[in-house]
Amino acid sequence: MLENQINFIIEIDKMKSVYRRTYITSGDRRENDAEHSFHVAMMAHLLVKYADKPVNVDRVCKMLLAHDIVEVDAGDTFAYDAKGYEDKEDREMKAAKRLFGILDQDLGEEFFNLWLEFEDVKTNDALFANALDRLQPIMMNYYGKVTTWSLYPISKEMVFQRLEPIEKISKKLWTYAREIVEDYFDNHKGL
Amino acid sequence: MLENQINFIIEIDKMKSVYRRTYITSGDRRENDAEHSFHVAMMAHLLVKYADKPVNVDRVCKMLLAHDIVEVDAGDTFAYDAKGYEDKEDREMKAAKRLFGILDQDLGEEFFNLWLEFEDVKTNDALFANALDRLQPIMMNYYGKVTTWSLYPISKEMVFQRLEPIEKISKKLWTYAREIVEDYFDNHKGL
Repeated sequence: MLENQINFIIEIDKMKSVYRRTYITSGDRRENDAEHSFHVAMMAHLLVKYADKPVNVDRVCKMLLAHDIVEVDAGDTFAYDAKGYEDKEDREMKAAKRLFGILDQDLGEEFFNLWLEFEDVKTNDALFANALDRLQPIMMNYYGKVTTWSLYPISKEMVFQRLEPIEKISKKLWTYAREIVEDYFDNHKGL
Repeated sequence: MLENQINFIIEIDKMKSVYRRTYITSGDRRENDAEHSFHVAMMAHLLVKYADKPVNVDRVCKMLLAHDIVEVDAGDTFAYDAKGYEDKEDREMKAAKRLFGILDQDLGEEFFNLWLEFEDVKTNDALFANALDRLQPIMMNYYGKVTTWSLYPISKEMVFQRLEPIEKISKKLWTYAREIVEDYFDNHKGL
């Protein structure tokens, strides 16, 4: 029923008001979930040639468009917030059920399953999607005017830990990510 | 060369600072190009079942992610700005050449051609992409707290003219769009 999809389209407009910790490169303000989702979905098409294993870029793109929709209800959990991560899974599962449940059943199941696949980080498609979800804020931090890493007590080792899905799916992107993280912490932090 | 794609990814971050006339539904502020592109790309997957002709939804999605990138250089041209439309084509062609030219040649050509196809509105994929690009602000205006239609001298007939690509590709979405536009202008305008 068209009305279900319309309701969902209006509901996800709220992603434009869910702010992440990362700043847009101008440094003017923090980035929101809709902007981040656009950016990583586009990155999938631009960077798929660097994947070391076969991935379906159109599935990855769709997964990335959908991966943060749960945050309309569950909010953004900062990557380095250990306490926030304690109940992240429960909050997001509840949110996924409500939000994807607005859609027609076939569409709702498709997107719920794509979101679960993203969260499980097991398939090649999910690994690549997670790699881009990690890489994008690293790039924003490195090239942007305001760096989240300097606003919170975050060490190089903590950022390196976030690179794990990138290492598993693309040695090229992992090498690049390590290089800019190292350059930032060794040469720019605190400047 | 990876560096080209990285430079492009950073360049399109500027879309987050290109503001459209349309407001986000909360009414708090105008929507930007990155948010709009996310929204229509997601809508492609949700509404493709209402297309009357065969469309490749993954191509449509990619086309919609790319369709407003030229506005990083050319700026947003308001749909009802006749003067702005006079040199829109020139400004955007120049922008497309510069921006997609940052990418590796194969990627650059692919996205330049997708953008041209979108602008030509001839293929089914381009028609459907344009239909969603028209439908999204109509929905934002109708369901949101601030309606662009009430801020400018815009008549029901002017909005109806914008629906043409929707009529050509989906009678169902066109009927829906007409209904909400009529309801707004007949029952809500000025209230």
